[in-house]
Amino acid sequence: MIRRLSLTVPGQGLHEITREVAAAVAESGVSEGLATVFIQHTSASLTVQENADPSARRDLEAWLARLVPEDDPLWTHTAEGADDMPSHVRAALTATTLSIPVVDGRLALGTWQGIFLWEHRRARHRRNVVVHVGG
Amino acid sequence: MIRRLSLTVPGQGLHEITREVAAAVAESGVSEGLATVFIQHTSASLTVQENADPSARRDLEAWLARLVPEDDPLWTHTAEGADDMPSHVRAALTATTLSIPVVDGRLALGTWQGIFLWEHRRARHRRNVVVHVGG
Amino acid sequence: MIRRLSLTVPGQGLHEITREVAAAVAESGVSEGLATVFIQHTSASLTVQENADPSARRDLEAWLARLVPEDDPLWTHTAEGADDMPSHVRAALTATTLSIPVVDGRLALGTWQGIFLWEHRRARHRRNVVVHVGG
Repeated sequence: MIRRLSLTVPGQGLHEITREVAAAVAESGVSEGLATVFIQHTSASLTVQENADPSARRDLEAWLARLVPEDDPLWTHTAEGADDMPSHVRAALTATTLSIPVVDGRLALGTWQGIFLWEHRRARHRRNVVVHVGG
Repeated sequence: MIRRLSLTVPGQGLHEITREVAAAVAESGVSEGLATVFIQHTSASLTVQENADPSARRDLEAWLARLVPEDDPLWTHTAEGADDMPSHVRAALTATTLSIPVVDGRLALGTWQGIFLWEHRRARHRRNVVVHVGG
Repeated sequence: MIRRLSLTVPGQGLHEITREVAAAVAESGVSEGLATVFIQHTSASLTVQENADPSARRDLEAWLARLVPEDDPLWTHTAEGADDMPSHVRAALTATTLSIPVVDGRLALGTWQGIFLWEHRRARHRRNVVVHVGG
């Protein structure tokens, strides 16, 4: 089963999408299988991270922003704005696709795990995510 | 087929789990398909790396430890210890999930490839890994 | 369905392989499912990146080359050349495997997305990639 998600995110940072992916799994009726989440963009990405303490997410965002800053003189691909090229690099360092086993009709996430859409651009964006659930 | 692995690792570093994953594939009886390995934690991760020369693994561990050090003044998420937040970052930079084709009933790994659980915390941990093998 | 690709790349950098992967999907006859691309090497990797503007790829290559340089005194695994150990690290930071949904018989890539083999060694190499397409 394929389910397309259209997600509006307010701007840069980690946005949890576990509920939306879990809903696609529930709809599929698959009891044992594999759910794959794919983001159709190269300036936003996916990650599985801790969903308990927000400080872990803030530190993760701050660390990656510092590792791949906007004002790096290396950038030549700057036509779409200062936040564009760092977004591509940050996406390349994280994930475009995640596959999570489905057990008893549910995503087999660990206790503290959530699925996040990581927006790397500053502005509000609508992002397309494709979920495949297979038996 | 779903197989749950409970793996005890002595502490930080790359621990090869190719044999455990291969055993799950053998048990599944799948001759052509896909094996997906998923780790249910956000302070340990997965990687496919060279399993021949241990110096390659040591250099990889040392490099990531230096890129994401424990004593970074950026960290605010420190309640669980100095090695907690760097663990989340190191996990985000590597993989939570890996999918490997199965050919003739075996993992289609390259000659020098092994599957590794990358423990990022200092202490001994029991880690849960879920393997899905589909036809 | 499993399709093995043998790809010769002239040297370091991002080499687009979308066409080869799309051909494997077309051959499979799968109309709705999942395509998984796996590279059987640890000094080359995979990524989904922008395939429109070549400057984005050049910046991405330059950034990773600077983050993981050849002349790092940390390297002890140097028997195979100065470009070997950085290649393993660069591969660990990017992807060994990618899964992309198949919709209406085609890869569900975003408008600007391409699949790339990222060669991290300097020399010309033949690289083996395994594609699995499942229904």
